[in-house]
Amino acid sequence: MAEQDYRIEHDTMGEVRVPADALYRAQTQRAVENFPISGRGLERAQIRALGLLKAATARVNGRLGVLDGEVAAAVATAADAVAEGEHDAHFPIDVFQTGSGTSSNMNANEVIATLASRALGADVHPNDQVNASQSSNDTFPTTIHVAATEAVLTDVIPALDHLAGTIERRAEEWAEVVKSGRTHLMDAVPVTLGQEAGAWAAQVRFGIERLRDCLPRLGELPIGGTAVGSGLNAPAGFGAAVAEELAKVTGLPLSEARNHFEAQAAQDGVVEASGALRTVAVSLNKIANDVRWLGSGPRTGLAELALPDLQPGSSIMPGKVNPVIPEATLQVVAQVIGNDAAVAFAGAQGNFQLNVNLPVIARNVLESARLLAAVSRLLADKVFAGVSVNTERAREYAEGSPSIVTPLNAYIGYEEAAAVAKQALAERRTIREVVLERGHITSGKLTEQQLDEALDVLRMAHGSR
Amino acid sequence: MAEQDYRIEHDTMGEVRVPADALYRAQTQRAVENFPISGRGLERAQIRALGLLKAATARVNGRLGVLDGEVAAAVATAADAVAEGEHDAHFPIDVFQTGSGTSSNMNANEVIATLASRALGADVHPNDQVNASQSSNDTFPTTIHVAATEAVLTDVIPALDHLAGTIERRAEEWAEVVKSGRTHLMDAVPVTLGQEAGAWAAQVRFGIERLRDCLPRLGELPIGGTAVGSGLNAPAGFGAAVAEELAKVTGLPLSEARNHFEAQAAQDGVVEASGALRTVAVSLNKIANDVRWLGSGPRTGLAELALPDLQPGSSIMPGKVNPVIPEATLQVVAQVIGNDAAVAFAGAQGNFQLNVNLPVIARNVLESARLLAAVSRLLADKVFAGVSVNTERAREYAEGSPSIVTPLNAYIGYEEAAAVAKQALAERRTIREVVLERGHITSGKLTEQQLDEALDVLRMAHGSR
Amino acid sequence: MAEQDYRIEHDTMGEVRVPADALYRAQTQRAVENFPISGRGLERAQIRALGLLKAATARVNGRLGVLDGEVAAAVATAADAVAEGEHDAHFPIDVFQTGSGTSSNMNANEVIATLASRALGADVHPNDQVNASQSSNDTFPTTIHVAATEAVLTDVIPALDHLAGTIERRAEEWAEVVKSGRTHLMDAVPVTLGQEAGAWAAQVRFGIERLRDCLPRLGELPIGGTAVGSGLNAPAGFGAAVAEELAKVTGLPLSEARNHFEAQAAQDGVVEASGALRTVAVSLNKIANDVRWLGSGPRTGLAELALPDLQPGSSIMPGKVNPVIPEATLQVVAQVIGNDAAVAFAGAQGNFQLNVNLPVIARNVLESARLLAAVSRLLADKVFAGVSVNTERAREYAEGSPSIVTPLNAYIGYEEAAAVAKQALAERRTIREVVLERGHITSGKLTEQQLDEALDVLRMAHGSR
Amino acid sequence: MAEQDYRIEHDTMGEVRVPADALYRAQTQRAVENFPISGRGLERAQIRALGLLKAATARVNGRLGVLDGEVAAAVATAADAVAEGEHDAHFPIDVFQTGSGTSSNMNANEVIATLASRALGADVHPNDQVNASQSSNDTFPTTIHVAATEAVLTDVIPALDHLAGTIERRAEEWAEVVKSGRTHLMDAVPVTLGQEAGAWAAQVRFGIERLRDCLPRLGELPIGGTAVGSGLNAPAGFGAAVAEELAKVTGLPLSEARNHFEAQAAQDGVVEASGALRTVAVSLNKIANDVRWLGSGPRTGLAELALPDLQPGSSIMPGKVNPVIPEATLQVVAQVIGNDAAVAFAGAQGNFQLNVNLPVIARNVLESARLLAAVSRLLADKVFAGVSVNTERAREYAEGSPSIVTPLNAYIGYEEAAAVAKQALAERRTIREVVLERGHITSGKLTEQQLDEALDVLRMAHGSR
Repeated sequence: MAEQDYRIEHDTMGEVRVPADALYRAQTQRAVENFPISGRGLERAQIRALGLLKAATARVNGRLGVLDGEVAAAVATAADAVAEGEHDAHFPIDVFQTGSGTSSNMNANEVIATLASRALGADVHPNDQVNASQSSNDTFPTTIHVAATEAVLTDVIPALDHLAGTIERRAEEWAEVVKSGRTHLMDAVPVTLGQEAGAWAAQVRFGIERLRDCLPRLGELPIGGTAVGSGLNAPAGFGAAVAEELAKVTGLPLSEARNHFEAQAAQDGVVEASGALRTVAVSLNKIANDVRWLGSGPRTGLAELALPDLQPGSSIMPGKVNPVIPEATLQVVAQVIGNDAAVAFAGAQGNFQLNVNLPVIARNVLESARLLAAVSRLLADKVFAGVSVNTERAREYAEGSPSIVTPLNAYIGYEEAAAVAKQALAERRTIREVVLERGHITSGKLTEQQLDEALDVLRMAHGSR
Repeated sequence: MAEQDYRIEHDTMGEVRVPADALYRAQTQRAVENFPISGRGLERAQIRALGLLKAATARVNGRLGVLDGEVAAAVATAADAVAEGEHDAHFPIDVFQTGSGTSSNMNANEVIATLASRALGADVHPNDQVNASQSSNDTFPTTIHVAATEAVLTDVIPALDHLAGTIERRAEEWAEVVKSGRTHLMDAVPVTLGQEAGAWAAQVRFGIERLRDCLPRLGELPIGGTAVGSGLNAPAGFGAAVAEELAKVTGLPLSEARNHFEAQAAQDGVVEASGALRTVAVSLNKIANDVRWLGSGPRTGLAELALPDLQPGSSIMPGKVNPVIPEATLQVVAQVIGNDAAVAFAGAQGNFQLNVNLPVIARNVLESARLLAAVSRLLADKVFAGVSVNTERAREYAEGSPSIVTPLNAYIGYEEAAAVAKQALAERRTIREVVLERGHITSGKLTEQQLDEALDVLRMAHGSR
Repeated sequence: MAEQDYRIEHDTMGEVRVPADALYRAQTQRAVENFPISGRGLERAQIRALGLLKAATARVNGRLGVLDGEVAAAVATAADAVAEGEHDAHFPIDVFQTGSGTSSNMNANEVIATLASRALGADVHPNDQVNASQSSNDTFPTTIHVAATEAVLTDVIPALDHLAGTIERRAEEWAEVVKSGRTHLMDAVPVTLGQEAGAWAAQVRFGIERLRDCLPRLGELPIGGTAVGSGLNAPAGFGAAVAEELAKVTGLPLSEARNHFEAQAAQDGVVEASGALRTVAVSLNKIANDVRWLGSGPRTGLAELALPDLQPGSSIMPGKVNPVIPEATLQVVAQVIGNDAAVAFAGAQGNFQLNVNLPVIARNVLESARLLAAVSRLLADKVFAGVSVNTERAREYAEGSPSIVTPLNAYIGYEEAAAVAKQALAERRTIREVVLERGHITSGKLTEQQLDEALDVLRMAHGSR
Repeated sequence: MAEQDYRIEHDTMGEVRVPADALYRAQTQRAVENFPISGRGLERAQIRALGLLKAATARVNGRLGVLDGEVAAAVATAADAVAEGEHDAHFPIDVFQTGSGTSSNMNANEVIATLASRALGADVHPNDQVNASQSSNDTFPTTIHVAATEAVLTDVIPALDHLAGTIERRAEEWAEVVKSGRTHLMDAVPVTLGQEAGAWAAQVRFGIERLRDCLPRLGELPIGGTAVGSGLNAPAGFGAAVAEELAKVTGLPLSEARNHFEAQAAQDGVVEASGALRTVAVSLNKIANDVRWLGSGPRTGLAELALPDLQPGSSIMPGKVNPVIPEATLQVVAQVIGNDAAVAFAGAQGNFQLNVNLPVIARNVLESARLLAAVSRLLADKVFAGVSVNTERAREYAEGSPSIVTPLNAYIGYEEAAAVAKQALAERRTIREVVLERGHITSGKLTEQQLDEALDVLRMAHGSR
């Protein structure tokens, strides 16, 4: 760095050269130099949570007399700006850092102290004032819980709801589109496309339930426990007050940890939520696969569906519309499954009063949430909203499946029915054709109307009930 | 096989030689020959669920007139015997088999048909009667949901409750046992062993909540959907009636699937439950690691705890008590994490109307439940119930930690406090000794009583609040 | 137990009641009681390796004068019988046990001591003689390496070789069976089934390479390191001599560990091998999926292949042959991926001079090997050996794919070619038909011979090179 | 966008608005709009490989007469600039995109075409010229193999070599630093710190072997296979020539795929390499854990090592140096294990002629390589290079471990030795003290010299051999 490009900051280890225009100070700079690992910082959602938390703690510290009212207000205002994303460029520390996230907590403290000092025209101390009544060990995991709760409630669930709603609207349209069921990938008895799509929508809806059922534990906040969970150096009631403030500001179901020692020693609530996101991914894998298979072809595949054309396929294959959004979905699924494995591994490794894999846990669960939300919206808007159905081919499949011979047992007996099915299969003809050819109408075993009813694939799809 | 050792059975593919004394018939035998893979069959819990389900379906079929009353009763009685484990030896099919579990469903149908036929003195047909109103595609996944719900509620949760209760009792005893906190594995401010153990107990208790919150979905039963979810060939209301019957007989929170197409196309409810079991495993990893580390030594480790001696250590190292149950726990954790990965992979691969990874999903989730229940009880009974504490050493740690200098800031100032801490560390002495030596009492900076209070580690552990 | 059913054994902790006819003694019995967890013991392959190792150590101890010659011979003979599987019933300890496998090592020592004592008519001591120059900490991991090396070389690789060979034979038959390629599941330019199957065979062959490349490290044996790797209490050269003896007896590429401290502190060589087995599983997943999709139908799927009929499908759907072996394969894949996750987790958790997750590592890697070997043989013999091809349909697909218009660019220009393709697709007709209808032959743009060559799908599959 | 900020580009689907200064064109822009998912593009290493590949294919196309010499040269020059990173800002497409990576391949084609067009003053076509003789289906996976091979050979292995070398240098220094071994975390017989560190170094060295052994398969390049592996539209010998060119330019062991159909249908070589990286991570987990545990304390932990102080610990705990680099390492391990799970999942899902999870596979394996390389260097330079040893405490541990009584068996008998050990433990004294007190020297059982030798812990560490 040229001399004019930096300034000197001090900490207990001595002098550090910090970029001249940086809002952060010595400890952030040391961490930048200590952790040149991934080239990526915290997720935006977690920087936001750091801002929200520092604003809430400042306000509570002000109310409880730990901080002077003016200072508290200045800190809160600066922290709100951090939450809004105005200073993301001043959060340069790698996500792979000290396992407590101390470096990023100090980064927030330093940036907010600088901003508040400027606003007040008086020194605000990163530790003594911005971090008052707190420790990295309660703040950093609190930001994970706040960010993950917000991601689930304001990002993932609305996206899943949008996806489920979009599928449900199409399922209603498709209520009478009869097709062959497929089990073991083999021809089976009929279903409607509405029923099939309804199952996809149900998977998504149940995913929302899964996520909601994690929130009571995910929304528990360690704040108030300070260094080891005991709350040493925090005023009585601090954790509860901050949790309440955060819940009010964000509208999220946040609460004080029921057991502060547990809340810092373990991150089980996040591991659980990661498992729920993973289950949502598993659901999306099934849906994306079904859709791309039903859209396979147009000549050499199943070709029941035609997916919207989003980008030019090969210049030489005019019918080739690749299922690019389902493919992106499958890849998101793979990533979420991988991220979840990272979270579980990291979550299992805590010792005594702290789990020191916090940043990697945060990165993975928050990325999973982002990816699932994004791809769910794409699935809804770029696939389900526009997919069209080849109802004729779907019906051909339904009527071509040898399994539809089943209801004829009552008229011609099981053995003759089996013979009909085998002949139809061997001669690539429909059951109806073979029944007529074998003379069952002319011989009076059943009337044409009975045949019509028995072979009514839509009726079969409704379970004859 | 010698000629007298087998009998000939027939099916649509021809003759099959079946062991003379086998209760099963041709289809089971074919599957035995087709799948010589792992050498292991279904989990006992799933055979039990097959028995329970076949008894319930028989009773409902009887009530709805699908089966003759006497036949229904004979089938139900035979199925009950299967549930009770009387015929496990007649379930020889490998768990790695057709992905629908059809082979094992037919195994149950054949065994029960043979038993019922003998009881009635009349032929009972495996398909037409034992399997009446059913398909493998609804029965087999139903047995997974029944068995997993039962395992969670009657095996895992009581074991976790026992573990949590045992820890809580010890935590109460240890309420005043003060020790040093450890974060990043480094000396930190004091906690009590009661607080530390309370965090373990809370992890276990929250694990019970996690499991309970999966039950609404895990307890949904596909039965009634038959081949593809439509219920073709089952009488109206069949699924609801069987679910009610099963709930009544077992006392478990079982219910009819809200969407039968989803319930057969996907196994997301089981993937979710596996994720919750995995989270419980993650909790146990933390607990087992803490315990074995606290018991490490006796000379070269932390040696705060002494675990009960369960089996001779090395003949040459008399003090060597290896933490064998915590080690078994760590291994169960590894297995459950692996099993969960298998379940997630398998759960993601369904196509259209059926997931054909059912047996492997069942094996893994049921084994995980068994392992967690067993090892939780061992942790409770063979570790926590008998572990003893070296309270003297624990207090030495608390008092030796340089961090306890913190409350002295108020009397001698931060800089002098830091100097005290550094000197204590360098000279391997206590903070108290150094404070006295440096003359802070004689100089009147604080009284001995104030020093006593300030260095009261138990007070610090209670957060000074 | 009734009084006559047990005998009293003693160890340093006191009396233990052992079943009267048990070959094992006090320490085994204590472990049986301490670890009622999974209900399963070690894999047979590991008991075999325990026998092989104890025989080898006895012979080397005899040669080096540690054991008297007669005693050494008696121990070796008894150990050989254990290796051969004659006493498996006397290995009752659960696989989830002390993480060092000490209990199972003592089980082997006790059983062999009892057998050798009987043969000699004189007391042979489990520790002092059978375990002479050894520790559980070098023997137990040695048995993992021996068993895994043997499983890979004598079980997995021959099975994979058989599978690859079987596929290759079919691929040769299918060299001229032209079909449509499929990318993104969509119609693409032609390939032959021989090329497609050749890729499957190549995956399997490369899997063999992967496994072979792990052997230099997997075959390194910790034996000789005793308690912590230093070899305390073992005579000089003991490890090298035992490794040589084992290599000679088994014919396997076994060698003394290059670094005994590494060999006991970590199990990285097994983690690596598990990763290779996992990669083989990943290959099989692709192959099994391709095969079951190509065999899907017969009416509503791709139906290029017809898999051998191994067991009756549904009684009402005569054409329904479920791909049961590919499904079993997919499930084995899921299990191997899960087992590998367990191995990686367990392998990462070693501390200082020992990894105490040895039994769970052994269980998972050995089961994975067994499952992969078994299912590879089934895939070969029950699927590939007998699968038949619908060559007519395959050619229809190839000729129906709009992408085959590509070579016509040279004659009629890209735009007209695209128009041809679009029309063919819209009207469900072949490219050839449309070219003729649009008059390109009559107008002289190309001759019929040129059209034939241009649309020769087999030529396209060979890359026109 | 304001009107002057964009230009209009066309493709077969119509008009697209592209930023005015973008080097890319319509297809890139469509993909940017289609995939707003993760906010991250390809890894730099893959963009570099795209540049290298496009330069190589241009040169070979020039040599083989597919491209005019001047055009080939212009394309190659432009591609080289892409490889060098000069145009990374023009690669805006999300990594979660079409599973074939077609969008990113077209991105490269468009950017290079624009650059070459400008240089030549004549239109260069993205498809017909930059992509000549290629398809996304062979180019994109080729870039994964090139980038991964380069990452392993020029990034990971040198970093591991540096780490191993650094540890080995310290191990030599520590050859005589005796300490207690620890197994099961419990006191065991002595080792030297040199032996312990030598095991860490061996783990790292074996990791290098593991990675090298994957290269024969990882270095196989699909290029030349075009759309489905058949090489349609590529001149004979194209793949071999490009592989040779790339090998020459990069100095990497790259070769033409032995089976082009396998090389595009599967990504097993990358799955295998990911498994090897995962094994390296597992090794680092052991090492980082050992180091942070040995450095735990300074008062309440093991405190054998003192890690370099990299950043201020808590302002109130002067001795508190948190092991931040080992913690970053543990988190990298968790991420690599997660990334590997994603790769395995994605690698297993290929169908027919293409695996459509390519971008996610690339992202994860390349990130794992980057993370492992970075953190290995930090471990070397910021931990091992500067760590100091408390040799006095280490020796105290060695001498304090009751297990060192072992060699006294020869003089005083096992029972008395055991009594000595028990007394030493109970009274917190050394074995030596107790032997003297119990009068074994005065009674003449052994001389003081013999006692010295017997209790020489360094001699024990060397295995008495």
